[in-house]
Amino acid sequence: MPTEIERKFLVDHEKWNSLAKPKGNVYKQGYILSEEKRTVRIRVTPDAAYITLKGASAGISRSEYEYTIPLNEGNEILENFATSAVEKTRYNINYAGHIWEVDVFAGDNKGLIVAEIELESENEPFEKPEWVGAEVSHDNRYTNASLSVKPYKDWD
Amino acid sequence: MPTEIERKFLVDHEKWNSLAKPKGNVYKQGYILSEEKRTVRIRVTPDAAYITLKGASAGISRSEYEYTIPLNEGNEILENFATSAVEKTRYNINYAGHIWEVDVFAGDNKGLIVAEIELESENEPFEKPEWVGAEVSHDNRYTNASLSVKPYKDWD
Repeated sequence: MPTEIERKFLVDHEKWNSLAKPKGNVYKQGYILSEEKRTVRIRVTPDAAYITLKGASAGISRSEYEYTIPLNEGNEILENFATSAVEKTRYNINYAGHIWEVDVFAGDNKGLIVAEIELESENEPFEKPEWVGAEVSHDNRYTNASLSVKPYKDWD
Repeated sequence: MPTEIERKFLVDHEKWNSLAKPKGNVYKQGYILSEEKRTVRIRVTPDAAYITLKGASAGISRSEYEYTIPLNEGNEILENFATSAVEKTRYNINYAGHIWEVDVFAGDNKGLIVAEIELESENEPFEKPEWVGAEVSHDNRYTNASLSVKPYKDWD
């Protein structure tokens, strides 16, 4: 079973903004099904679209099945099958042998910047860049599925 | 938008059983999401698996997005993401220039045999083989999604 092992952190906005970085890509993600133990997501990027199924989380691990689909069909599915959505710009940052995926959210989640690192095993060591702040791996409010229905602007 | 245009008929069991036919294939189908206007289905056949999204029906037409996925992942998704399922043997029968897909259901739907014909347009003419009986295109009880939660054996 394909498993995603991932840790998630907040980002220091000031340090992030002053960082020299590659161009980001706009990601639109819609949720077709969003339950605690089963998520079906459509992701549309500038180059391709993906349909992704994610299972229940066990700590920082989660089963994940992802399939590339035609871009135009991804847009149609996003429009017609998703019941909630998020939009963000994703930056891939190489640092000390790992890739950090940094998501700068837009729309109702504007003001939120989150950095994720995907690991091969739960205990794999890694170095944190100085712009990476507090860990939020276990805070479900930061899942994109949750952000699509309870966006950052509505948090207390 | 990819559209499926399909008519569905009951099958005369006696005539069907006496028919010389090619080998059928076992299809296992699970439903990850099953609503009137949005269905997410996983189908596992002997050779491949498919993830399929179907939209709302408009008469005999329905939007349909289908993607081939690895067989082993299809089985895992069927096991871990589907909340209901059907099992059937499918036969593809060539007749008068069309392919009839005949589903002989098993399990809780045993005793049900249904024939479908896919059309290019809603008014496309076609010939019916003599083993094809009453049309049930508009009877939602015969959708596989419905049969997975209210199987034939439980019908009044």
